[in-house]
Amino acid sequence: MTHPLDTTFRGRKVLITGGLGFIGSNLAHRLVALHADVMIVDNLWPDYGGNLFNIDRIADHVRVNISDVRDEHSLRYLVQDKDFIFNLAGQTSHMDSMRDPFTDLDINCKAQLYILESCKKFNPSARLIFASTRQIYGRPESLPVSESHPLHPVDINGVNKLAGEAYHSLYFTVHGIRSSVLRLTNTYGPHMRVKDARQTFLGEWLRLLIQGLPFEVWGGTQLRDFNYVDDVVQAMLQVSAHDESLGKVYNLGGERPVNLEQLAHLLVEANQGGEFIIRPFPDDRKAIDIGDYYADYRSISSDLGWTPKVSIEEGLRETLGFYRKHLNRYL
Amino acid sequence: MTHPLDTTFRGRKVLITGGLGFIGSNLAHRLVALHADVMIVDNLWPDYGGNLFNIDRIADHVRVNISDVRDEHSLRYLVQDKDFIFNLAGQTSHMDSMRDPFTDLDINCKAQLYILESCKKFNPSARLIFASTRQIYGRPESLPVSESHPLHPVDINGVNKLAGEAYHSLYFTVHGIRSSVLRLTNTYGPHMRVKDARQTFLGEWLRLLIQGLPFEVWGGTQLRDFNYVDDVVQAMLQVSAHDESLGKVYNLGGERPVNLEQLAHLLVEANQGGEFIIRPFPDDRKAIDIGDYYADYRSISSDLGWTPKVSIEEGLRETLGFYRKHLNRYL
Repeated sequence: MTHPLDTTFRGRKVLITGGLGFIGSNLAHRLVALHADVMIVDNLWPDYGGNLFNIDRIADHVRVNISDVRDEHSLRYLVQDKDFIFNLAGQTSHMDSMRDPFTDLDINCKAQLYILESCKKFNPSARLIFASTRQIYGRPESLPVSESHPLHPVDINGVNKLAGEAYHSLYFTVHGIRSSVLRLTNTYGPHMRVKDARQTFLGEWLRLLIQGLPFEVWGGTQLRDFNYVDDVVQAMLQVSAHDESLGKVYNLGGERPVNLEQLAHLLVEANQGGEFIIRPFPDDRKAIDIGDYYADYRSISSDLGWTPKVSIEEGLRETLGFYRKHLNRYL
Repeated sequence: MTHPLDTTFRGRKVLITGGLGFIGSNLAHRLVALHADVMIVDNLWPDYGGNLFNIDRIADHVRVNISDVRDEHSLRYLVQDKDFIFNLAGQTSHMDSMRDPFTDLDINCKAQLYILESCKKFNPSARLIFASTRQIYGRPESLPVSESHPLHPVDINGVNKLAGEAYHSLYFTVHGIRSSVLRLTNTYGPHMRVKDARQTFLGEWLRLLIQGLPFEVWGGTQLRDFNYVDDVVQAMLQVSAHDESLGKVYNLGGERPVNLEQLAHLLVEANQGGEFIIRPFPDDRKAIDIGDYYADYRSISSDLGWTPKVSIEEGLRETLGFYRKHLNRYL
């Protein structure tokens, strides 16, 4: 039996914004394996996730266009002949969004409108996947959090991602742009940013562990769910390949919730050693923390059969293995 | 017994963005009567609601600063010494927002961040009232619509106003900015834009009626609620005067819902003559229409005792009286 994804992307033109970043580059690897014609757009801004080493093994099989999604003119050209557009470029740091709300607005709102307007004018039949975030729910009122949970983001990044997501839904309803939205939870795996906690605190934990230093757990009782990046890539491909997900918004979610202290223990176990310190939550983070979160992902399961396949134990082992080998390329 | 508002604003410094517009200028009149020290900011952009005639009778009692809320530098200065800031400047046209999403984004999102950041840096104790809109709810899932109704805006204007509103709530929670949000429903009355339907279809109906021309009712069965502008001004003053509304979001709403055909009849009766034509909803508007809407405003009623006082019959008579006298100043 042929897996349907084997043929969906063969020879098709795919654009990945943020394609040198964590999730984008993993997606590029998978799409190259599926024989797609992949173009990557990335600005390689040092504070963000882009890293040329992320595509080291596929560099001869993708085209890389260094440009910023805030550059309306380059986007207008780049979207034109693409069959699939995976729109992953974004400002992801909650703290940076509070320090500099304008940059977050330009990237997470204005640039999204550039992409959508460009599709509307020059490529209205492209299939568009937008990477949104659980951050738009804010503090959960009930658990697990389904897509109909109220949206009360607690930081600028959440507000702007909510707007960016709403534009995508709107351009589907009003202009027929073939978009779908995925609300990602904590994603981890090879290629994630580890030099600081801008993308995920887990990146920083992992780096310190490999460097033989203790890492800090803030609080520790907060429940979270985690997706290994391969599962997220699989979801993006499945959603883009199936028309029943047009105009839809799907949560992704982890196999089971764990609290941060449990996660720290799992990481130390996967590393067969290491230590961490539990500390109270810093004051400047408290105001934008969301408490417990884990996703209800039954909607994508029931529509497309997606479930997370990689256990957190296995995912952490894989990730540690990658960074033990390649940490110097991520510092 | 002294009405508390009599003393709240006496001698206090008040900034009204969009203060030459419909609601802003009515608010300015009331604040001048309450002996406030009023400064108006407006860009007098011809497509918007600003009109110097709106402050004709109070011109000697207010200061007018012609500038745009997208001008970060002027805002930074203007907010500095104000006790109250009524933040009413906005792009309000749903259709314009779909044609030009970028201008809507700059005014309804970026400029709001300018104002909030300026308050945070230079005037963190100012009392800030933000005029939001029922448009952020999108198509109601249940009626009447309370503040906890899901937010699914159906046009760019609704998405951006939602973000602008969320910024205000966020700056209260995170930075202690003393903001409150009012979600306005259809507001009408003297000073509203009547030269076209950019601000409200009711303005255009009324102008055509006074000009002796038939006006067009699209659809006709859609339920809506309406606030006479004096009731909206009263709500803004009450909210700004009471600290229990800090950080809160309140719906305003009309005394009763009426459908558009009933409203057309009420308008013709108030005018003692005139005619209208019922036409199907135009295609380009269908996608962004919201169906029936009327607000549940029990939250502001129970917190502050606000209810709409002016019946729609009385409000329409007052409004017609104003435009019969002054129509030429609004064409």
